[in-house]
Amino acid sequence: MNYSALSTAELNDLYLELQSKFDAYKSRKLSLDMSRGKPCTEQLELSVGMLDVISSSDSLKTRDGSDSRNYGGLDGIAEAKELFAKVLKVSVNEIIIGGNSSLAMMHDTLSRAMIHGLYSSKTPWSKLPAVKFLCPSPGYDRHFAICELFGIEMITVDMLPDGPDMNQVEKLVREDAAIKGIWCVPKYSNPDGITYSDEVVDRLASMETSAEDFTIFWDDAYTVHHLTDNPDRLKPMLAACKEAGNPDRVLMFSSTSKISFSGSGIAVMAGSESNLNYIRKQLAVQTIGPDKINQLRHTRFFKDTDHIKAHMEKHAAIIKPKFDTVLSILETALSGGGIAEWNKPNGGYFISLNTLDGCARAVVSMASEAGVTLTKAGATFPYGKDPRDRNIRIAPTFPTLSELTTAIEILCLCVQLISIRKLLADKE
Amino acid sequence: MNYSALSTAELNDLYLELQSKFDAYKSRKLSLDMSRGKPCTEQLELSVGMLDVISSSDSLKTRDGSDSRNYGGLDGIAEAKELFAKVLKVSVNEIIIGGNSSLAMMHDTLSRAMIHGLYSSKTPWSKLPAVKFLCPSPGYDRHFAICELFGIEMITVDMLPDGPDMNQVEKLVREDAAIKGIWCVPKYSNPDGITYSDEVVDRLASMETSAEDFTIFWDDAYTVHHLTDNPDRLKPMLAACKEAGNPDRVLMFSSTSKISFSGSGIAVMAGSESNLNYIRKQLAVQTIGPDKINQLRHTRFFKDTDHIKAHMEKHAAIIKPKFDTVLSILETALSGGGIAEWNKPNGGYFISLNTLDGCARAVVSMASEAGVTLTKAGATFPYGKDPRDRNIRIAPTFPTLSELTTAIEILCLCVQLISIRKLLADKE
Repeated sequence: MNYSALSTAELNDLYLELQSKFDAYKSRKLSLDMSRGKPCTEQLELSVGMLDVISSSDSLKTRDGSDSRNYGGLDGIAEAKELFAKVLKVSVNEIIIGGNSSLAMMHDTLSRAMIHGLYSSKTPWSKLPAVKFLCPSPGYDRHFAICELFGIEMITVDMLPDGPDMNQVEKLVREDAAIKGIWCVPKYSNPDGITYSDEVVDRLASMETSAEDFTIFWDDAYTVHHLTDNPDRLKPMLAACKEAGNPDRVLMFSSTSKISFSGSGIAVMAGSESNLNYIRKQLAVQTIGPDKINQLRHTRFFKDTDHIKAHMEKHAAIIKPKFDTVLSILETALSGGGIAEWNKPNGGYFISLNTLDGCARAVVSMASEAGVTLTKAGATFPYGKDPRDRNIRIAPTFPTLSELTTAIEILCLCVQLISIRKLLADKE
Repeated sequence: MNYSALSTAELNDLYLELQSKFDAYKSRKLSLDMSRGKPCTEQLELSVGMLDVISSSDSLKTRDGSDSRNYGGLDGIAEAKELFAKVLKVSVNEIIIGGNSSLAMMHDTLSRAMIHGLYSSKTPWSKLPAVKFLCPSPGYDRHFAICELFGIEMITVDMLPDGPDMNQVEKLVREDAAIKGIWCVPKYSNPDGITYSDEVVDRLASMETSAEDFTIFWDDAYTVHHLTDNPDRLKPMLAACKEAGNPDRVLMFSSTSKISFSGSGIAVMAGSESNLNYIRKQLAVQTIGPDKINQLRHTRFFKDTDHIKAHMEKHAAIIKPKFDTVLSILETALSGGGIAEWNKPNGGYFISLNTLDGCARAVVSMASEAGVTLTKAGATFPYGKDPRDRNIRIAPTFPTLSELTTAIEILCLCVQLISIRKLLADKE
């Protein structure tokens, strides 16, 4: 049933019917938080064994014989660098292990760029009249928040089914030297669940940029976070940049926040040795090194990439039913109505729902009246402003299946109700 | 035997005698690293029980019921804030728990000041023609390195037996609005082992400053690190600033790096609520929060300030003999010679040795010929330049008693030899 084919009377009837269902939910005074991509308790339980691999009876020595309990190890212990080099398909010298937060590594990288510039920069960015970043959107709100904090102007670029619109990207970076970087979540993107195609990777790696220090901030947050047996494949970006003769163009970031524990994981960055050596010098002034015991905990628990793969299959077994539930309810309630579109991701943490233009804020607001907290409408765009006011990010992992079912049913009702209001208004 | 009373012939004879002792050490091809204030293995063993208080069979819930394994907790869990508030004598709202490094918290605070300014600033510091810091010296080399990284001009202020020379400090900050801060290690100072007197604390808190955002960087690193039963007492600085009507003047820093594990401790900062709320806003963009499991580990292991006190007594039992050994060898070899002075600290991690003017670099260099690595001469002063070239920082904690004995005997020989060379040159 395509809503646009319905008459005013039919729409009014349908509205009343849906409204009474919505009122029934509202009277239940629910409180369901669907706002952030957090693992659920069952997922966290998968890693509790990590708390047992380092006890007082275990050796606290790292592979090279140093005491993990003492100072030292600026960019990580050898075994952690080796493991994450394999995960990110780079060499061990192209890895810096950080603290518990890849977001902090990205923030700090931009902070250093503002004050000192990057390896390829002639000038600290704060000394320039303007610094701009390309923000393929919908994207990750916390990336955009970092740009806002540093006064970096954000330019929205459309997301296509295989990554950012490269025609837009290539034109912009060729013409404007103030464009210093681009934010990318290249695999199972936040929120679309898109994985960049080989062509997009190659074009990003090889495109002509006006800024000589143009940097791809490659947030490979969901690199092993598959939901299917036939996962998406992402072309390795650092290798692509090297092949294209631009080895210093990319800085990659990742973490175990959604592999082990969200607050107590290991963050990591990767890039060319020249890029990282420049950063290591500044890092040596900031810190004597990240928590090495926690690195040992991770390397002893996860061992190698095969064990990580097996571990991620357990995550998938827990969260795939949640994704399926959301997709199934969306399908039942909204399919064929011409009032919403959504993605079916092969991995990651989100389902991205697009309503009719101009409806997302009203939908999110209405859902909150029934006790369902969704990510703020607009959050997935720079400055929190979705130009078409249509994108809603659904985070299925944290709630229980039953909570999720209720929340998505309410969300669908809100999409239907707000869409009918819009269609009725359009008819007037 | 005062060296200056000796004749040229006597000095030459003594030189040959000492030289042959030095050559004997040299032939042993030793390798003794005395360069950094690191805890020794025995000290690290004191905290291994901390690795057992959080296992897979323990609750990972914090006191407020939240799951320490998941995201959240920007400025720390309640029980950690409560514990460190007691240690630093501030209220729980005046505490931010960080990652594993108080150095990183200091670095990041200055980084934020450069880009955004501080709570009391009108202008980001990077937009100002000059930013200067007072550096009571000898002081902590890593503080000075942070200033160098950010291009902050360092002004050396003399250390007196009860803290920085306040006459110098008061005059400088009253006259020069570019002076934005002062580095202080107020208790068992690095390297002098001095604890600031109440008068110094009060004068710092109440002095008139030309910069309205003048900030005391109060690195209370050794606040519970006593070596005696009759420890130094430091007047609480935040309270003093409040009393003086300057509540936002101080930012305090500390950590458990030399209480629990040096790479896997808990760092903390403290200050007025206004100051910290300003920082919390920016921190919320940098990170979702520090490692909460490690905070739980610390609060469950250390429980309260009484337990910390008892724990620090065990540290003292291990390292006090090392301090005593150094002091005893210095006394035997150098006392009454008129060629060196040193402090006898009641706590902290260092013994500060002053040679005759112009001798420190030569002493450190000579010691390295015999395989003894000391902190680089000059490191305890801004830009690595000791204007009188006389200060040597001795870090007694890490080596074994036997290594320490050898290293300090060699150091004393070097001081004697280089001093005789100087005295002989002066006679010419």
